[in-house]
Amino acid sequence: MAITFYWWGGSCPSWRVMMTLEHKQLAYESRVLEMSKRDHKTAEHLAMNPRGKVPVLRDGDFALYESVAIIAYLEAKYPERPVLGRTPEETGLIWRHVSEVMAYLEPVLDRVCIPIYRGTAAEQVDAVRAASHDVAKELAPYEARLAQQSWLVGDGPTAADYVLVPQVGHLYRAMSKPVAQDLDLELQPVATRFPAIAAWWDRIKALPNFDRTYPPHWK
Amino acid sequence: MAITFYWWGGSCPSWRVMMTLEHKQLAYESRVLEMSKRDHKTAEHLAMNPRGKVPVLRDGDFALYESVAIIAYLEAKYPERPVLGRTPEETGLIWRHVSEVMAYLEPVLDRVCIPIYRGTAAEQVDAVRAASHDVAKELAPYEARLAQQSWLVGDGPTAADYVLVPQVGHLYRAMSKPVAQDLDLELQPVATRFPAIAAWWDRIKALPNFDRTYPPHWK
Repeated sequence: MAITFYWWGGSCPSWRVMMTLEHKQLAYESRVLEMSKRDHKTAEHLAMNPRGKVPVLRDGDFALYESVAIIAYLEAKYPERPVLGRTPEETGLIWRHVSEVMAYLEPVLDRVCIPIYRGTAAEQVDAVRAASHDVAKELAPYEARLAQQSWLVGDGPTAADYVLVPQVGHLYRAMSKPVAQDLDLELQPVATRFPAIAAWWDRIKALPNFDRTYPPHWK
Repeated sequence: MAITFYWWGGSCPSWRVMMTLEHKQLAYESRVLEMSKRDHKTAEHLAMNPRGKVPVLRDGDFALYESVAIIAYLEAKYPERPVLGRTPEETGLIWRHVSEVMAYLEPVLDRVCIPIYRGTAAEQVDAVRAASHDVAKELAPYEARLAQQSWLVGDGPTAADYVLVPQVGHLYRAMSKPVAQDLDLELQPVATRFPAIAAWWDRIKALPNFDRTYPPHWK
């Protein structure tokens, strides 16, 4: 069946699914929606996802939304090159990382990145610094783990790594903005504060077709 | 291996895991932690979950936290009586429901239930009514689906139903409080506003050992 993947660049949920599609070496048609054109609010898109969001995956007649649901579907449908573990214990640990990144890291990282992207960070330095402190605390266990091993769970990349990819991508991007340079955040410079995460990021960037998942407008 | 399950009554994440344990007819030792005694902040508990939260499942030497991770682990370790689907499409839809309940329904229902439980609802009637409207919108697709079929995905209960259980449990409990009676919320009475969900709730309550999962202090 033919897979079509609807997404937009920089969407964290989209990015983790794309990493999974590339990991499994699945052929898919990539459709980058344009929010400015309200592509996500068309009748066609709302028929696939009534919430009008991305990502959406269509596989033949079957359409599915919610990123972790798409990852679970792909794993069940195309079990080769697993991303959700080879043992029950690996599966549990991978889902634990998926849950923790989404529940704990993503909200606090948003509180750093969004003000920087919007250009309002300088007006709310204290809030951005406090959020940076929370991000550093959330990243600490990843830094410790990746200092010991190349990938978060098992001996190759899994969905645990892929859920972290957009977060680290946003972290690097936000910290590279000129306004961020002046804020003296404890996340900077990323490569010095989190050397194991930085080395892992280099491994991620070297994965096949990583460039295809990278937000087009960031390049 | 011997399973021990650490939880407290009324914890939504705990409740969905317990429904899964009972569904799979697994033997487990139930340990109800007492927050007032700080059971969740002991060294023993923090060694299993550094976030000091519930649920935690210990299976032999393997300890795991985050409710969806525990459900995924149990499904992989004890695949009989599946809760995550019998086909890739069912698996995808079940995880979609799990994601949507956690991301969309749970936060807005909290905005109704917590003020009612805390006795502050009367002081913030407008906010509670607005949240009730959001809850009603989130429940509408479930009401529509359960008017057509007994269970959310497939022909028996799955994790899609079990993630909804604590939400509907809290909804009934909050609406039964005397303070809620005076607020004239559009969620009341539950059985009249959501007859299909109410009928599904009766089916849930009739499941084996449902009583064991019901918050002890609610009885």
